[in-house]
Amino acid sequence: MGAGDPGDAPRLTHFDAHGNAAMVDVSAKAETERVATAEALVSMRPETFALIESGQVAKGDVLGVARIAGIMAAKRTADLIPLCHPLALSRVAVDFTLLPERSAVRIEATVALKGRTGVEMEALTAVSVAALTLYDMCKAVDRGMTIGDIRLLHKSGGKSGTYRAGDEA
Amino acid sequence: MGAGDPGDAPRLTHFDAHGNAAMVDVSAKAETERVATAEALVSMRPETFALIESGQVAKGDVLGVARIAGIMAAKRTADLIPLCHPLALSRVAVDFTLLPERSAVRIEATVALKGRTGVEMEALTAVSVAALTLYDMCKAVDRGMTIGDIRLLHKSGGKSGTYRAGDEA
Amino acid sequence: MGAGDPGDAPRLTHFDAHGNAAMVDVSAKAETERVATAEALVSMRPETFALIESGQVAKGDVLGVARIAGIMAAKRTADLIPLCHPLALSRVAVDFTLLPERSAVRIEATVALKGRTGVEMEALTAVSVAALTLYDMCKAVDRGMTIGDIRLLHKSGGKSGTYRAGDEA
Amino acid sequence: MGAGDPGDAPRLTHFDAHGNAAMVDVSAKAETERVATAEALVSMRPETFALIESGQVAKGDVLGVARIAGIMAAKRTADLIPLCHPLALSRVAVDFTLLPERSAVRIEATVALKGRTGVEMEALTAVSVAALTLYDMCKAVDRGMTIGDIRLLHKSGGKSGTYRAGDEA
Amino acid sequence: MGAGDPGDAPRLTHFDAHGNAAMVDVSAKAETERVATAEALVSMRPETFALIESGQVAKGDVLGVARIAGIMAAKRTADLIPLCHPLALSRVAVDFTLLPERSAVRIEATVALKGRTGVEMEALTAVSVAALTLYDMCKAVDRGMTIGDIRLLHKSGGKSGTYRAGDEA
Amino acid sequence: MGAGDPGDAPRLTHFDAHGNAAMVDVSAKAETERVATAEALVSMRPETFALIESGQVAKGDVLGVARIAGIMAAKRTADLIPLCHPLALSRVAVDFTLLPERSAVRIEATVALKGRTGVEMEALTAVSVAALTLYDMCKAVDRGMTIGDIRLLHKSGGKSGTYRAGDEA
Repeated sequence: MGAGDPGDAPRLTHFDAHGNAAMVDVSAKAETERVATAEALVSMRPETFALIESGQVAKGDVLGVARIAGIMAAKRTADLIPLCHPLALSRVAVDFTLLPERSAVRIEATVALKGRTGVEMEALTAVSVAALTLYDMCKAVDRGMTIGDIRLLHKSGGKSGTYRAGDEA
Repeated sequence: MGAGDPGDAPRLTHFDAHGNAAMVDVSAKAETERVATAEALVSMRPETFALIESGQVAKGDVLGVARIAGIMAAKRTADLIPLCHPLALSRVAVDFTLLPERSAVRIEATVALKGRTGVEMEALTAVSVAALTLYDMCKAVDRGMTIGDIRLLHKSGGKSGTYRAGDEA
Repeated sequence: MGAGDPGDAPRLTHFDAHGNAAMVDVSAKAETERVATAEALVSMRPETFALIESGQVAKGDVLGVARIAGIMAAKRTADLIPLCHPLALSRVAVDFTLLPERSAVRIEATVALKGRTGVEMEALTAVSVAALTLYDMCKAVDRGMTIGDIRLLHKSGGKSGTYRAGDEA
Repeated sequence: MGAGDPGDAPRLTHFDAHGNAAMVDVSAKAETERVATAEALVSMRPETFALIESGQVAKGDVLGVARIAGIMAAKRTADLIPLCHPLALSRVAVDFTLLPERSAVRIEATVALKGRTGVEMEALTAVSVAALTLYDMCKAVDRGMTIGDIRLLHKSGGKSGTYRAGDEA
Repeated sequence: MGAGDPGDAPRLTHFDAHGNAAMVDVSAKAETERVATAEALVSMRPETFALIESGQVAKGDVLGVARIAGIMAAKRTADLIPLCHPLALSRVAVDFTLLPERSAVRIEATVALKGRTGVEMEALTAVSVAALTLYDMCKAVDRGMTIGDIRLLHKSGGKSGTYRAGDEA
Repeated sequence: MGAGDPGDAPRLTHFDAHGNAAMVDVSAKAETERVATAEALVSMRPETFALIESGQVAKGDVLGVARIAGIMAAKRTADLIPLCHPLALSRVAVDFTLLPERSAVRIEATVALKGRTGVEMEALTAVSVAALTLYDMCKAVDRGMTIGDIRLLHKSGGKSGTYRAGDEA
């Protein structure tokens, strides 16, 4: 960004030298196996948690609907995030862990691609939309639910290599 | 959901008596003015925060791009959340507050509609996608950013009346 | 369509006097309650039917996924069918009946709207996409599945009044 | 699916070991030429058939509109069918055969791709949406039209090799 | 925009007092009949024009395909133009006039709505996408085609009343 | 198209031998680097131009919003133009030049892909939607704005080689 040495400072890659947003050129990048995993946490009242939990064993499968929403959203990422590249994803999985002691549902999504750019945004979009769907289906009984801890857990492939949350410290 | 009296217990409205997901019938509801406001918080390293902040006064307007993404996503809510009704939104606004002391950006979205169902999901979707866009544009310098505190702040209109976060306690 | 009297003969309403396709004007129509129900039948080998049936009571809920796909597709109808009007649907439900004696799954969708045009296409699109999803999830074990009997069962509301399949004869 | 040997029984590939739906991983598959052909049949009253037939030689080209709808729908398949992979299709063609003796229109779609997964669903989606469009354009004169015989005729490419309808018996 | 009198100067309505883009609030506006007509002109080499013209009477109906694309695009306007309101359009028509003396095709689109905001953008989007489709189908023989004269011809309804191109001078 | 020699006459490649529209087969084409650049010109009243120009240095960044709309539209091209192939674009950039002497804004878009078909339509769609967005944001002050000179400036890659506007004469 500076005149002298572009390597001196961190730089927002989605802007050109004039500060204009652009979808960056990835055509020179190699096609490699890329995988990314992200998570989110939906916190709620114990009564709401009990309703979701019971749906797993009986009627009303909230998590089954949220899983489909998350998978479909991963495929729509480039439609939603302005500077994301459209990608032919090769795998999307969304899973849930019930955390009764925290009265929360943990969502984890893994996305894979053989391609020229990473799939972090696809994994983050999947957990976000799965969480929003969970909120939607339970909001009549608990409008105070909160969605948090949305973050990248892990990614591999590409020039920047492997990232694992917690390693940076 | 209980055998005796459906009014006895909280119930997930998006499921019918057999536990099957459905888009609930709102055709008998009155058309009223409905407004919802939601928020999200994106936390990052101080260096990343400084890059966003400087973009506001110079080159590289991250927040301008995230705002457009959030507004457009509000209009796509029914495409993303399986049981949401398609709605002819009459207003969408997305705003940002820089919180230097927390090294975070707070996002707030307000959505309005004259219609038969609420717009909470549209406001929550707007802040979520604005937050994801912010992550996307800064991820090359800070993959450890986290998105949290996504919640409904306020909603009015409709049979269930007004909700304000914090009032429930 | 003939020169003399346009009222003489049945006529394709989606074409103007010059034979050009158009989305017909409904702005003068009254807003009434409109409901439509459609069905489809997916036929398969008994082994495939057994897999779907067992998923209902154990792991692998094929019908739950197909239901969500059908509901979401109803909302996309105007994106898919060129001359359909975009509509703010007020209700969508998709249900399945297992027909072991025919080794088939019957799909029924009901869509409702308070508006200026009917929702037949939305109900037909819902059953079609639910059926395609069912095919997709079972195709690895049975590529010979067939989808048939897609038809309108019933519709009410609007100037043309009530239609019930079988009444016309 | 059984505990002992997963190879013993047919298995629904879109579910993981816990019965959760997922978009299956195709990244290890080879890129091969893949082609799929599907068909559908739209049956109608002779008067309706006559209107469509006359449109082919004069005003009101119902089939031309349905063809475009089918081609565009093939490209939207991954948006509609939850567990389908997004694919960069290399060819889509939709054709119609008028069957006056059956008062029906036969629709055939062929889709091709050089890629890691098959295009059966794209061909089936193309014929289904072309059929729905045909219904839409003629419904004002014939609400009793039915769509049937939607099936895969042929597919080639990929590990499972060539399939031809009728060969399985 | 100034503090004293907002009527003093023209002002861009899609920005709030802080210069932030927003989808403006139309919920207080009355539902009125709104109509807008727009046009575009596609200029080409005489040989290209001859191919299009011959398609009208024989094989290869370029204009039929472009018409469908224009109608469908009008319905997608709010997906494409960031600050446009989603609208339940009640009519869309796209027509073509062959101008042999100018070796050009004139496209005209009319859109109607009973609603709270105008449909100018829907009419302009319809002619633009119809023109792009025409370009796409002829580009193999004439990459030098140009699209121009895209403008609003007429609009009525709403608080700002009737506009007719040419009246302003 | 003719019986004897298909090379004799220019031919519309999007139609088969029977005159039916189709998405042409590109699976046999080589994957090469493909780049296309297109432009558009938006003409307006000097007062409108002054508002846009001032937004660049102060509040109300019309061009920033139009840029995002153009980039996102490039990714939607295959959804809009019926016979376009879906493509995994590797780069999209949209830039603006203010032309005070003409009271106009010039828009230029460049799109790149490593793939089997060209990206001319993506570049043309980007400039068209950026221009429509500019119109939308300024229409309250200037409904007489016109969009013109939409054309391909340059393309490279693929069997047909390099094209540069103006060279054909």
